Amino acid sequence: MTWGRLYGISVGPGDPELLTLKALRILQTVPVVAYPAGKGDKPGLAESIIQTYLAPEQIRLPLRFPYVFESETLAEAWEAAARETFLYLSQGLDVGFACEGDGGFYGTFNYLAQTLSQNYPELIIERLPGVSSPWAAAAALGLPLTLQDQRLFILPALYHADDLDAALSQAEVVVLLKFRQVYSQVWRRLQALDLLQRAWVIEWATTPRQRIYHPLTAYPELKLSYFSLLLIQT
Amino acid sequence: MTWGRLYGISVGPGDPELLTLKALRILQTVPVVAYPAGKGDKPGLAESIIQTYLAPEQIRLPLRFPYVFESETLAEAWEAAARETFLYLSQGLDVGFACEGDGGFYGTFNYLAQTLSQNYPELIIERLPGVSSPWAAAAALGLPLTLQDQRLFILPALYHADDLDAALSQAEVVVLLKFRQVYSQVWRRLQALDLLQRAWVIEWATTPRQRIYHPLTAYPELKLSYFSLLLIQT
Repeated sequence: MTWGRLYGISVGPGDPELLTLKALRILQTVPVVAYPAGKGDKPGLAESIIQTYLAPEQIRLPLRFPYVFESETLAEAWEAAARETFLYLSQGLDVGFACEGDGGFYGTFNYLAQTLSQNYPELIIERLPGVSSPWAAAAALGLPLTLQDQRLFILPALYHADDLDAALSQAEVVVLLKFRQVYSQVWRRLQALDLLQRAWVIEWATTPRQRIYHPLTAYPELKLSYFSLLLIQT
Repeated sequence: MTWGRLYGISVGPGDPELLTLKALRILQTVPVVAYPAGKGDKPGLAESIIQTYLAPEQIRLPLRFPYVFESETLAEAWEAAARETFLYLSQGLDVGFACEGDGGFYGTFNYLAQTLSQNYPELIIERLPGVSSPWAAAAALGLPLTLQDQRLFILPALYHADDLDAALSQAEVVVLLKFRQVYSQVWRRLQALDLLQRAWVIEWATTPRQRIYHPLTAYPELKLSYFSLLLIQT
């Protein structure tokens, strides 16, 4: 039997209208729809974005990806997710994996695709690009993201204050993701560099929960969700 | 009379199916559709992406943006485009400006929006984010764009070889736009750094003209179109 095909369906930052036409078509065509499982009873972001588009007969396949750094635990989770997915693919069923933002941009889809293509090199995998959070954030703020010869530096996580300084000195526009645990250090560094007026924090961009913090002078401390982004124009 | 609203409609990298649902809805609702005029008789990329979606009664407004660097010439062109656009807005008609990729990401929409909001601060401007070329390119190459803690550096143009070295030393993933005039210098630098196997050139991503060059060892010289992108995994 011919294997099904695996689609990485990027479903955008949050607003279900920010799916592409292609993403919607594939999402509504595949017999099996996979997505990262939410925590506890809550649906994950990708799941909540797509739920209105799914038909009752489509098989739902929530896949668990632990929020940890240990590479062994992660590799085990990816193997388990790959096995579950391949159960359907091996029966000739196409599987669409929905991921928030763009699946190639720090997305869990990357690890599922990597594991599956290592185990089954002949498997056909198609990636559908989508709207990712820095673009959605800039649009929601009513700002250009980048102009003319401005360089853009995206830091997915911040472990050392030095990394921020290096980025700020190299690029005219800097975007930080997953910075919430070090927010107060980042704030102090931006204060020292006189950049608080040129920095924006946006949470849950394009969703009904969207919130904007600007100028940052007023927010030396913030409790932020995972889906937060910091944009700095240097 | 109430002014019309200006929409920046990001129409994605080339495949008309990569418009978002929202972009299509707004594009088909606005009475006036503006876009960057093509050169000579040829339609521009944004125009060619949207033409199948437009109705005969929608007014087409091609706007000329010269491909030059002189800031005075550019400012004059933006003023002229803003005047033409405001003719419709002031009559209460909404105008949607279609731009390829994401309009906030080095897009001409930024300058039109800037000029109009300087001249008419009360004008309502809405930006619709879209799929931009680095994301589309990675998906078309079947690659993740970024994984885990990889930093992403986007250089919109390259004027000095030093800039490339700095980017390559700072980030795990580097994307170059508008590099075609310095391609052979970039190639030699990548050769010296042993990165030709980890570099991809993609032209016209997601369009029928798409072409991929990889590994770059085979391509010390290339004549590339404006819509080319170089992706390097360091």
